[in-house]
Amino acid sequence: MTKLWGGRFQTSAEAWVDEFGASIGFDQQLVMEDIEGSVAHVTMLGAQGILPAEDVAKILGGLKELKRLAEAGELEYSVANEDIHLNLEKMLIDLIGPVGGKLHTGRSRNDQVATDVHLFLKKRVFEVIGLIEAFQATILEQAEQHVETIAPGYTHLQRAQPISFAHHLMAYFWMLERDKERFTESIKRIDILPLGAGAMAGTTFPIDREKSAELLGFSKVYANSMDAVSDRDFVVEFLSNSSLLMTHLSRFAEEIIIWSTDEFKFIELDDSFSTGSSIMPQKKNPDMAELIRGKTGRVYGNLMGLLTVLKGTPLTYNKDMQEDKEGMFDTLHTILGALKIFEGMVRTMTVNTDRLHNAVHSDFSNATELADYLAIKGMPFREAHEVTGKLVFTCIQRGIYLLDLTIEDMKAESELIEEDVYEVLKPEAAVRRRNSLGGTGFAQVKIQLEKAKASLAK
Amino acid sequence: MTKLWGGRFQTSAEAWVDEFGASIGFDQQLVMEDIEGSVAHVTMLGAQGILPAEDVAKILGGLKELKRLAEAGELEYSVANEDIHLNLEKMLIDLIGPVGGKLHTGRSRNDQVATDVHLFLKKRVFEVIGLIEAFQATILEQAEQHVETIAPGYTHLQRAQPISFAHHLMAYFWMLERDKERFTESIKRIDILPLGAGAMAGTTFPIDREKSAELLGFSKVYANSMDAVSDRDFVVEFLSNSSLLMTHLSRFAEEIIIWSTDEFKFIELDDSFSTGSSIMPQKKNPDMAELIRGKTGRVYGNLMGLLTVLKGTPLTYNKDMQEDKEGMFDTLHTILGALKIFEGMVRTMTVNTDRLHNAVHSDFSNATELADYLAIKGMPFREAHEVTGKLVFTCIQRGIYLLDLTIEDMKAESELIEEDVYEVLKPEAAVRRRNSLGGTGFAQVKIQLEKAKASLAK
Amino acid sequence: MTKLWGGRFQTSAEAWVDEFGASIGFDQQLVMEDIEGSVAHVTMLGAQGILPAEDVAKILGGLKELKRLAEAGELEYSVANEDIHLNLEKMLIDLIGPVGGKLHTGRSRNDQVATDVHLFLKKRVFEVIGLIEAFQATILEQAEQHVETIAPGYTHLQRAQPISFAHHLMAYFWMLERDKERFTESIKRIDILPLGAGAMAGTTFPIDREKSAELLGFSKVYANSMDAVSDRDFVVEFLSNSSLLMTHLSRFAEEIIIWSTDEFKFIELDDSFSTGSSIMPQKKNPDMAELIRGKTGRVYGNLMGLLTVLKGTPLTYNKDMQEDKEGMFDTLHTILGALKIFEGMVRTMTVNTDRLHNAVHSDFSNATELADYLAIKGMPFREAHEVTGKLVFTCIQRGIYLLDLTIEDMKAESELIEEDVYEVLKPEAAVRRRNSLGGTGFAQVKIQLEKAKASLAK
Amino acid sequence: MTKLWGGRFQTSAEAWVDEFGASIGFDQQLVMEDIEGSVAHVTMLGAQGILPAEDVAKILGGLKELKRLAEAGELEYSVANEDIHLNLEKMLIDLIGPVGGKLHTGRSRNDQVATDVHLFLKKRVFEVIGLIEAFQATILEQAEQHVETIAPGYTHLQRAQPISFAHHLMAYFWMLERDKERFTESIKRIDILPLGAGAMAGTTFPIDREKSAELLGFSKVYANSMDAVSDRDFVVEFLSNSSLLMTHLSRFAEEIIIWSTDEFKFIELDDSFSTGSSIMPQKKNPDMAELIRGKTGRVYGNLMGLLTVLKGTPLTYNKDMQEDKEGMFDTLHTILGALKIFEGMVRTMTVNTDRLHNAVHSDFSNATELADYLAIKGMPFREAHEVTGKLVFTCIQRGIYLLDLTIEDMKAESELIEEDVYEVLKPEAAVRRRNSLGGTGFAQVKIQLEKAKASLAK
Repeated sequence: MTKLWGGRFQTSAEAWVDEFGASIGFDQQLVMEDIEGSVAHVTMLGAQGILPAEDVAKILGGLKELKRLAEAGELEYSVANEDIHLNLEKMLIDLIGPVGGKLHTGRSRNDQVATDVHLFLKKRVFEVIGLIEAFQATILEQAEQHVETIAPGYTHLQRAQPISFAHHLMAYFWMLERDKERFTESIKRIDILPLGAGAMAGTTFPIDREKSAELLGFSKVYANSMDAVSDRDFVVEFLSNSSLLMTHLSRFAEEIIIWSTDEFKFIELDDSFSTGSSIMPQKKNPDMAELIRGKTGRVYGNLMGLLTVLKGTPLTYNKDMQEDKEGMFDTLHTILGALKIFEGMVRTMTVNTDRLHNAVHSDFSNATELADYLAIKGMPFREAHEVTGKLVFTCIQRGIYLLDLTIEDMKAESELIEEDVYEVLKPEAAVRRRNSLGGTGFAQVKIQLEKAKASLAK
Repeated sequence: MTKLWGGRFQTSAEAWVDEFGASIGFDQQLVMEDIEGSVAHVTMLGAQGILPAEDVAKILGGLKELKRLAEAGELEYSVANEDIHLNLEKMLIDLIGPVGGKLHTGRSRNDQVATDVHLFLKKRVFEVIGLIEAFQATILEQAEQHVETIAPGYTHLQRAQPISFAHHLMAYFWMLERDKERFTESIKRIDILPLGAGAMAGTTFPIDREKSAELLGFSKVYANSMDAVSDRDFVVEFLSNSSLLMTHLSRFAEEIIIWSTDEFKFIELDDSFSTGSSIMPQKKNPDMAELIRGKTGRVYGNLMGLLTVLKGTPLTYNKDMQEDKEGMFDTLHTILGALKIFEGMVRTMTVNTDRLHNAVHSDFSNATELADYLAIKGMPFREAHEVTGKLVFTCIQRGIYLLDLTIEDMKAESELIEEDVYEVLKPEAAVRRRNSLGGTGFAQVKIQLEKAKASLAK
Repeated sequence: MTKLWGGRFQTSAEAWVDEFGASIGFDQQLVMEDIEGSVAHVTMLGAQGILPAEDVAKILGGLKELKRLAEAGELEYSVANEDIHLNLEKMLIDLIGPVGGKLHTGRSRNDQVATDVHLFLKKRVFEVIGLIEAFQATILEQAEQHVETIAPGYTHLQRAQPISFAHHLMAYFWMLERDKERFTESIKRIDILPLGAGAMAGTTFPIDREKSAELLGFSKVYANSMDAVSDRDFVVEFLSNSSLLMTHLSRFAEEIIIWSTDEFKFIELDDSFSTGSSIMPQKKNPDMAELIRGKTGRVYGNLMGLLTVLKGTPLTYNKDMQEDKEGMFDTLHTILGALKIFEGMVRTMTVNTDRLHNAVHSDFSNATELADYLAIKGMPFREAHEVTGKLVFTCIQRGIYLLDLTIEDMKAESELIEEDVYEVLKPEAAVRRRNSLGGTGFAQVKIQLEKAKASLAK
Repeated sequence: MTKLWGGRFQTSAEAWVDEFGASIGFDQQLVMEDIEGSVAHVTMLGAQGILPAEDVAKILGGLKELKRLAEAGELEYSVANEDIHLNLEKMLIDLIGPVGGKLHTGRSRNDQVATDVHLFLKKRVFEVIGLIEAFQATILEQAEQHVETIAPGYTHLQRAQPISFAHHLMAYFWMLERDKERFTESIKRIDILPLGAGAMAGTTFPIDREKSAELLGFSKVYANSMDAVSDRDFVVEFLSNSSLLMTHLSRFAEEIIIWSTDEFKFIELDDSFSTGSSIMPQKKNPDMAELIRGKTGRVYGNLMGLLTVLKGTPLTYNKDMQEDKEGMFDTLHTILGALKIFEGMVRTMTVNTDRLHNAVHSDFSNATELADYLAIKGMPFREAHEVTGKLVFTCIQRGIYLLDLTIEDMKAESELIEEDVYEVLKPEAAVRRRNSLGGTGFAQVKIQLEKAKASLAK
């Protein structure tokens, strides 16, 4: 078929070359944004007197019809028309005749595609933020149920100190809070309109870019037309922010998986978020958590991919940039799904409070209490640490825990130890006394939950 | 619907959870390999007397029908059946009744999916190698046309020394030769059969894994069943090899793009491999070269993605591993397309020998000749370099080239310079005299072409 | 030697294990921040009555001496003491006796190291922002010299439309503006104090975290102690922002390199930012631009590295996190150097205005003018594009440019063309008329420069 | 100072520009290879009569002295001399006078640096292979102790089927076997000599490249001089192979960490490979395993870094390529250390066979036995799976295991179940019966160990 830009060409590309170069396979996801952008553009062209009112009316009519067809899923795209822009333009001309060609006045595909991506991503980032908040609300709810649930706290995946299970869950709340913050800030750089930059130098038509921005709901227009068509920072930034979000989800997923093992059994996932085995009937696999952990890879990969695409490309538009979209679509699809799944998984999981309670009462996570106890009584901390270490070693050799030592056992290592040590060594006391700001003390955790609630309510 | 593994489950997953977890959207590309694997498996089960002959016959009949339907594109996959394995099994049972369930005897999805991927990739890597060779043959043909075409050779994108254009093209031949070598070696690690590893521990049925391997054309079986279901090295290796291939293509693409500029104009691409602009009628863009350069990003991204997926996952199968396929499919599709396009682009491009000739005759790429000339006459090389540098500087100030200097000009810097220098400074002579093994001298380039031909003929 | 945490251990690690695990080789770069953090911590301990005034005084005295020694470069670090924290603590105890051990009261290495990194990065990000602004100022200055310098504007590295060279340079100004914006926003998440989080659960001592924050100049404290010691988001964010910065520099570098070729010769770099060849005396290589383009790789690599480290790690601190620092140091060093070099390179480069002028007058970059001319006269743009394409093809066949066509030649393709077309086709006119907001028209570029100046002055 | 290539330059670079561009800070690690390469080069120059014997003798004498000084650590490098090549050349000239300059005859830094890297990496890859084998031998030894140690086997980190612990360990043996295979194959592409390629076009001197290759122990010379100086494939390949190696180590590390938890307690690491906490005296952290898992990030990052560097760079040498070395050195250092540490960690770890035994006897990992039992009795596998699932569910509700069910309980679900089922359900039997090739059956594991021993002995 005849290419719309084929004037100076002598031979036409073979079909498979066309297919390799075409983006219609994926950029059709921008159909609504492309129509929306065209509606604004032609409205502005009319307002500026660049196109006569009757042409504008015809074009708007055609675009309305295309929108209806798109919504009904009745548009048929063709690889021969390369991309969503030329597909729609061709359809418009088929619908309303050659006047459809005037839609392209003062516009190039370079500023058009950039406009579509800005429009698309702006909407979707709000959706992402909404799902982050929904997930945060669920974490908050679970946490509220478990302020007084004592659990082992880990460093190096070794039991370290007893904590409130709510405190552990809330750590993820704050990671998500930062994710939300980053996505929110990024909107500032998505919310800039490239339309009117033309191929890269601006246009000779007396267009009104601020009018277009207003019609499309953008706060700003690009200050430099060459930058406008070359800039994909906002997509990279979306991928960076998504990578960090996935990092957080992968960490939470790892914990869900570990907590679901027979050995830990701290939680039980709802059947809806687990799957079985085709060969082992007893299995209940935390598939969704594993899958989300795994999908972290594709998001990192998409980030690396786009950075590589952009590295060392000269100004302005280069065809390489067509590669900006698939990774963005894929990332968006991934994080929306992951957030939705994770919210459901955390909302429906059961916390085995008995297991957590027992765990804390049969380990050495109260050892720090003893060291602190000695330090408060005036022993330099390093020495207190040493003494406690020796008592732990004694216990391990005897197969007991600190609370099982007699006062004599303890005094043998330091005369500073007295009967009150037994109260201090109780896990509940250990948690309660860790009452520094942001610490795991019950009172502190309640303050933290209020702070989180206030933050969500904003 | 009822899950095939649903025995111990109380609630069924919501549809959107199913969809997030399902792989049928992409693993349907393995349909032929899955059937092929099942045919071999059931044949072996029959040969070992594990299944009675009549069951085997029924199952083989069903699989044959499924294959026919698959080839005709008439299979309808369902997300509810998660993946290609369960989809086909369900279809088989629908076709031939409950006996279809016996196909799964002594097999798990864990070894089944690994088998499919091995089968799939083995075939495709041969295809990749074939296309690499086709591209090498084309480079060789172009090179043969341009042994005596003198062109500027570059370091730092600055003209360095005159070269045979064939020599430049042939550099890519050898990069591709290494790519071919790596892909070929990788087959050794793809050509290992996991089937029979079961879920991960082997099976209690008296299967014959070597029989299965023979039926499926594998040279070896995995020595350890846990490794068999966990190993994705061969996919990573495919992605690594593809990343290097794309690195090479990106470098060649960069040169094609630079050579196609108005400023260089060393080549002209055929219209079939160029596209125009929707707004600038004069444009002839090297779109395909740019796109291939850009697509390097997605291949690197796929590599990074899978490495991330695998990092830190415990043995054996984890759902994370489902993420091994899309990046592999995408990479395969990308490199097959890129090789095919690049071959056509190089085959049909026109080399502007006049432009190359003129370029070489109006620059300083013969400066090394002068330095070597002085060195051969006994001047320490560093000094010769210094003297030549000064003469170049003189030329630049006067707006002339070395061949334009008088013998007096030259002698002023060194008495060692004599009339024979003018012959030495001719670009043709410079190329001819660079006759060290593997160098750009015409005689050497001819030897190189013969070596390349021999290598292709292997 | 005796480890400070060695109480319960029976055998001591071999030296080479120590060395593999030690971080003192690189985290000694945090020496000042570690001392600064300790000063604040002990001051707060004193203010809260946790330590007696005389202990505080001794410790502060010791820290002051350590600072002096550090500034004088007289500290000797030991691998046996693992990291900067234990090294300094050991030195302190050596200096002032066992009381030095009390510094560790209510603090763990987990919150200590996080504090050091926050302190370090906060300072350095301001330094980065300062260098970005210096570079922007230089770009602005160069641009002001070249508002009326007409140059070819490129898409696909093909000449597209004539532009003001200032406009091209300014595209980088705005990229840097976004970089600055991102770095500035990121400070919000660096400017949070983890100190007081203890090992991960807070502490039983009545510390005052807000006091510590005030002493160290932080605006906020972490709301959750487990998050406080696990969070490395702010480092990832620094690496993401640096990756985008390097992307921009790599694009500019690519242009500098291309512009410096014999074929383009649009600019000449100052000798200070070029190097020669050890073998080719005529070479003047844009080494610095190449090196910066290359160094993009290490920054992307550092980003990918840290993302990989964090993927799938459970809460809270894991030794993996020790890997957060080297990539951060290396990235910081790289971007500070790259910004400084690039500023100098752009400040001292010479723009060959004649070459640019000639380039624009012997190409088809005025073809869009003709198409727009026809569109304004009422021809649908697609048709205008077609007509222009044919005239370009005619020119190519005859070896001339559009301005060389006779009016009859042109009228043969469209009767709409009249004598006024010649004025329209002049490159200067083409630039001038592209006067849409943000476009390359001289008037617009001047407006843009004013906007940029205002932005820098903020 | 005066640059060796400074003939045509007017201003000298400022010191900080020099520093940014200099590679001497890291390429001094190539000092021995650079001298070795020079010795071969000058020997060949003498043999070919290009340099007179007395010059050769002087230069060889000087090089010998430089080698001695290098070994004694007495060379002092200068940033002003940029890199190791110019530093050594300058030192040589200082030692033996201007004749030292003749060493550079027929050689460029471009082929020289490539030669150094080839020489360096070839040696080191053999070292890597040696350490892989040492680690394999240790795994084999540990495995031999635990053939009959029954342990839970996992999929999805859920207990799946009982296995021989030796079988689990041996999975890593085979991963390392593939790593060894890949490193070994890569040598083929490292073992090619670039020397003699000159700056990129070869040389006019009658050099004998095959002589140089022989002197330096290379099997082949590069067939194309432009490829010779541009090729960094072999470094990328080293980084790819190292990335896969680290992937394997990260997986093993993850298991070590999980097995070391209080909850699993399957193994205990030797004190030499653990560390304590500065605040929690009871902690024994698997630091080395965590650190190795974390260091996976830097190796992936180095791979991505170099791929990015190479992407889209035109032929031949560009300064970007200087960025090939640091990531290579860092990766080498990392994998050598990680292999050494891991070997010691596995060699000295204690396997808690009691814990493993108990684990297997109180879970449902024998459920597959029941399903297989039913399948062998003629029930279609899918139905057998369903029946078993129901019995597992019954057990969970009653808090018992399959072996605790009465025969009536079982018959209630299927009449096919008889008394012999109890024998089948024993974990030992389950392992023993999984006797398929490569399976976990004791007999098979012994065969596997023999195969591994044979492979190591090769």
